[in-house]
Amino acid sequence: MKPYIVQNENALYYECGFSCDNAIFLRFSSNEAYFLTDGRYVAEAKENIINAEVVNAERDLVKKARDIIKKARLKFIIFDPLEFSVAKFDALSKTLNATFTPQKNFSQKKRIIKTPKEIELIETAAKIGRDSFCRFAQILKTCGFDKNEQELHYEAEISMRFGGQNELSFQPICAINENSAKPHALPNQNKMLKNGDLLLLDAGVKYRRYCSDRTRTAQIGSEAAFDDKNKQKFEDSFRQKIYDIVLKAQKAAIDAVKVGVRASDVDKAARDVIEKAGFGKYFIHSTGHGVGLDIHELPVISPYGDAIIEEGMVFTVEPGIYLPNEFGVRIEDMVAIVDGKAKVLHGDK
Amino acid sequence: MKPYIVQNENALYYECGFSCDNAIFLRFSSNEAYFLTDGRYVAEAKENIINAEVVNAERDLVKKARDIIKKARLKFIIFDPLEFSVAKFDALSKTLNATFTPQKNFSQKKRIIKTPKEIELIETAAKIGRDSFCRFAQILKTCGFDKNEQELHYEAEISMRFGGQNELSFQPICAINENSAKPHALPNQNKMLKNGDLLLLDAGVKYRRYCSDRTRTAQIGSEAAFDDKNKQKFEDSFRQKIYDIVLKAQKAAIDAVKVGVRASDVDKAARDVIEKAGFGKYFIHSTGHGVGLDIHELPVISPYGDAIIEEGMVFTVEPGIYLPNEFGVRIEDMVAIVDGKAKVLHGDK
Repeated sequence: MKPYIVQNENALYYECGFSCDNAIFLRFSSNEAYFLTDGRYVAEAKENIINAEVVNAERDLVKKARDIIKKARLKFIIFDPLEFSVAKFDALSKTLNATFTPQKNFSQKKRIIKTPKEIELIETAAKIGRDSFCRFAQILKTCGFDKNEQELHYEAEISMRFGGQNELSFQPICAINENSAKPHALPNQNKMLKNGDLLLLDAGVKYRRYCSDRTRTAQIGSEAAFDDKNKQKFEDSFRQKIYDIVLKAQKAAIDAVKVGVRASDVDKAARDVIEKAGFGKYFIHSTGHGVGLDIHELPVISPYGDAIIEEGMVFTVEPGIYLPNEFGVRIEDMVAIVDGKAKVLHGDK
Repeated sequence: MKPYIVQNENALYYECGFSCDNAIFLRFSSNEAYFLTDGRYVAEAKENIINAEVVNAERDLVKKARDIIKKARLKFIIFDPLEFSVAKFDALSKTLNATFTPQKNFSQKKRIIKTPKEIELIETAAKIGRDSFCRFAQILKTCGFDKNEQELHYEAEISMRFGGQNELSFQPICAINENSAKPHALPNQNKMLKNGDLLLLDAGVKYRRYCSDRTRTAQIGSEAAFDDKNKQKFEDSFRQKIYDIVLKAQKAAIDAVKVGVRASDVDKAARDVIEKAGFGKYFIHSTGHGVGLDIHELPVISPYGDAIIEEGMVFTVEPGIYLPNEFGVRIEDMVAIVDGKAKVLHGDK
């Protein structure tokens, strides 16, 4: 084991089951590790951390980290150059003889394979997320039509939060008609929901810090529901056609997921369906991304994704077609690699 | 004017009135500036930015920034070493002859003096924030007593959000009795609100991206309200004593605020009152911090704060006393420096 330093909250949590917004974690060997924080968090840290020594670093965590590294006479230490600012890294490394070895996405790489316990937590998050979509569909049916897009966005958030029981894994995307053609649409106050509108919802919750992520696109009406992606019906035949292509692409990608294939092959399976149908240039993002403690983790499922799919990985499969000024369709589920292939985590009821 | 580069969302917004989560802003002179982003945001950026050229940098913003800097034959460029990661800075500066001059808190330093228009926006945020506290007090009176701390925390958030009209400027802190003794208390599911409990609420909203920040401590009961800090009554005489000391300290600090004094003198005014009363070691944080687009800006009002107070600054004044395992009291308002002295921004009704 090589010595390392991390500070990102989810990286801290992964190392020792506790985190706060001002801490540094150092591990030098399997039985030598330090959690540095300030006085506000020391008591809580000591209650929760069993595999590292909690150190009260008072006002200067970086100085304390330097002292500990110096005392241990370390020759080198791994850090993530994406995680440390130039100023913090300079303060950390100056006056030290140790070599700091940069490793991009160091913690995310450690976390790319999930344990069965982690998959269980993500699966629970996915179930809670799916149920939240169903609650939102009920709200749409009962009182959706006097609301504008911004209000719907808020209702989506409230549905996910479920009386404060759940944290969001990210700010939901809730978009009507032409706004759904923007992958990162911002809600519009002047857009009221009408019967027959197309609505896209991309949202997720956290369960014990593990994230869920899901997207459904549906036509709003008495039948509007998010509980079965295979049964969505659109009156407009062109919308139905685009929806069916995206659904087919998603299935193709999920079928392509197997231990040993390359991430880019999973992407290609989805992209081929959409390209063959003539809409390739409207699929303007990657097919998916890893999910865990962070909402965006490894592997990246894109044309450039060179990771090899392995047992225990968890990622999204979310192709889409975005027709500017018209509408967009995206269908997203999370899969875990179990027994060599994709297990969809609570896609539908 | 010296050339500079920024990427933080609020720094971007301050420069050109628009921001998104993937952009770099370069200014070389008063009439040469660039806003680099990717295809998802180009259209919106062009609609909103008038004082900079919007550049579609596709997949590699840093490379595009390098190209533009190289083409302009810049000799040096200012950057904030707290804003750029080691990896991003390396990618940016390699192969360039330009010298990158580090200036910590570069954008926050530019923003330390607010314009009258900015103060107006912050004042509006403060008013909305105060009204949200009053809504929360109403909820406490009508249905607070069947709720635990986590549920109260959620109610506080819902009160601030006001049907989705307001964004939070930070996650509220809502703590009962001994939990209020932790300045960054996390909500507890097993703690039910009871009549006579002490409750601390620290919360704020955004108005057109400008933040508010406010804390009140009150005894819960039929009279519980957050609308007048001068009229809070505690049955327990020790709690009343501590409350009165904190209130006196806050007033002393607000009275000490004048153009030309040092930030540390404002801190000292509050700290002296608390120390003289014998509770100095329980005032475990700074007296205040600047507020603007970020919830924490300059100046820092602490024993180490060497900024000189100037017309147009906006900051919090928030002394507190925290008695471990007993309770904590904090009283916080925002002040703007107008006509040479502190104007409290909507402290109470």
